[in-house]
Amino acid sequence: MSESKALAQACYQQLWQNDHASQHLGIEMQQVDEGHACITMSVKQFMLNGHGTCHGGFLFAMADSAFAFACNSDNRPTVASGCSIDFIRPAKADDLLTATAKRLSRGRRTGLYDVEITNSDRQTIAQFRGRAHQVGSHIIDPTTLASGA
Amino acid sequence: MSESKALAQACYQQLWQNDHASQHLGIEMQQVDEGHACITMSVKQFMLNGHGTCHGGFLFAMADSAFAFACNSDNRPTVASGCSIDFIRPAKADDLLTATAKRLSRGRRTGLYDVEITNSDRQTIAQFRGRAHQVGSHIIDPTTLASGA
Amino acid sequence: MSESKALAQACYQQLWQNDHASQHLGIEMQQVDEGHACITMSVKQFMLNGHGTCHGGFLFAMADSAFAFACNSDNRPTVASGCSIDFIRPAKADDLLTATAKRLSRGRRTGLYDVEITNSDRQTIAQFRGRAHQVGSHIIDPTTLASGA
Amino acid sequence: MSESKALAQACYQQLWQNDHASQHLGIEMQQVDEGHACITMSVKQFMLNGHGTCHGGFLFAMADSAFAFACNSDNRPTVASGCSIDFIRPAKADDLLTATAKRLSRGRRTGLYDVEITNSDRQTIAQFRGRAHQVGSHIIDPTTLASGA
Repeated sequence: MSESKALAQACYQQLWQNDHASQHLGIEMQQVDEGHACITMSVKQFMLNGHGTCHGGFLFAMADSAFAFACNSDNRPTVASGCSIDFIRPAKADDLLTATAKRLSRGRRTGLYDVEITNSDRQTIAQFRGRAHQVGSHIIDPTTLASGA
Repeated sequence: MSESKALAQACYQQLWQNDHASQHLGIEMQQVDEGHACITMSVKQFMLNGHGTCHGGFLFAMADSAFAFACNSDNRPTVASGCSIDFIRPAKADDLLTATAKRLSRGRRTGLYDVEITNSDRQTIAQFRGRAHQVGSHIIDPTTLASGA
Repeated sequence: MSESKALAQACYQQLWQNDHASQHLGIEMQQVDEGHACITMSVKQFMLNGHGTCHGGFLFAMADSAFAFACNSDNRPTVASGCSIDFIRPAKADDLLTATAKRLSRGRRTGLYDVEITNSDRQTIAQFRGRAHQVGSHIIDPTTLASGA
Repeated sequence: MSESKALAQACYQQLWQNDHASQHLGIEMQQVDEGHACITMSVKQFMLNGHGTCHGGFLFAMADSAFAFACNSDNRPTVASGCSIDFIRPAKADDLLTATAKRLSRGRRTGLYDVEITNSDRQTIAQFRGRAHQVGSHIIDPTTLASGA
């Protein structure tokens, strides 16, 4: 495993422990690497809105989680400053969704990421774009990393 | 009560019955009128992210619910086509949040809405903007309304 | 005139000198104060697109100028990091447009602003939202200001 | 030349004739096909803002033109309903910019497009996302097309 991938996994595991939100949504990590994350989530009953489709908030939450794992993948703690989402087609109960986040660009303390949500027929459900900014120095103590952990 | 307010409440009640998502989030309606809605939600443990603050997805979900109640308030079923959110300051566990949605403009089949989320100190937590489009003819059968319900 | 208004005007005048873009668009300042700016612009022939209405780029440019004057109004040089615009109705040749920018919130080095463009019938043409971040220490040398200029 | 590419070029030429805005900006078409367009523009003196870099409005205008040529490429007249832009790095006087628009998805009467602006060092200047909706039946009379023009 590359060093950058090992670091991305270590950052994800550190964040995941306290990430009650992603755990509650039943999110499962499929792949994480530097500036990249791919997760899955199935649409549960509690995610349905008054129109009988997945509430946009839960689609956004899924995209936002993929975005967070991608932008925290190189041990710089970052949070979202602003995000937009375009809803392409509805997701339905029991749909298994995949959200794939990739970094578009990164400045000194900011970054821009795209996330696409697809269903199991590879149809696009939503397109998300998020801007992140760094809020601290590290997620995992670098001396721990240096000691070969 | 004005006729438009009565209609807004009837539409909200109709949508709410099947809105598992808003129920799950513990959202409570405070006020609904034509093109306007005000709801509250407290930040629960399951909404916290790996940074220990409210996951942006749950803030978005709250704003999106307020938006939905506002844009479905005059018996035209509408869904979001695209939304953006700017995060101003973090929300913490047990914070009681208020989301206030108002209509900015409406075309023949589309509408634009703003939602502001504040905490109990009246500090702004997030600013949301959503674009809606109409997807059907009515939420409540108009003949039912005409009969004086 | 209040001190904050005098400072806003001094910042605007300093920026305007080199603002070839706003000059080229024929923008006229109506009012500027701390976190606020109101400008006008008429739709010229060169702004029309292939549909015979004002090209969205020139509406955006107008909103972006109002935003810039509002967010540079307290002597902190700032630039836009990201913006969104929703087009409500078309603007036509010779329409006299007004763009009004106001600050929604401000953090240590960032700010969020809304700009509404209206025509002379007070109809909304577009709604713009912009996020700014500070890029330097000052627009006008503070020692100059202190000496009573 | 494929039929779809010939149609895309015919639609572009039809729109271009009346597109005073794109002409004024000195935009040059490099390539247009179904759902896709690539244009170039150099940053002129009149596009500079008070910070001495290209005014965001002219970057937006360029992206919006690429978007318009891409979404009008299959003879359905469409206009933008809402757009967002993220500014990555400044563009300077005389920079030769390239804007590449591609379709992300299309519904019955709507579409979503991404546009990336790069400079001649292939650095990203801005990322734009636009939502379009159809406003009429055709750009070029279909009977003209059928007659082999």
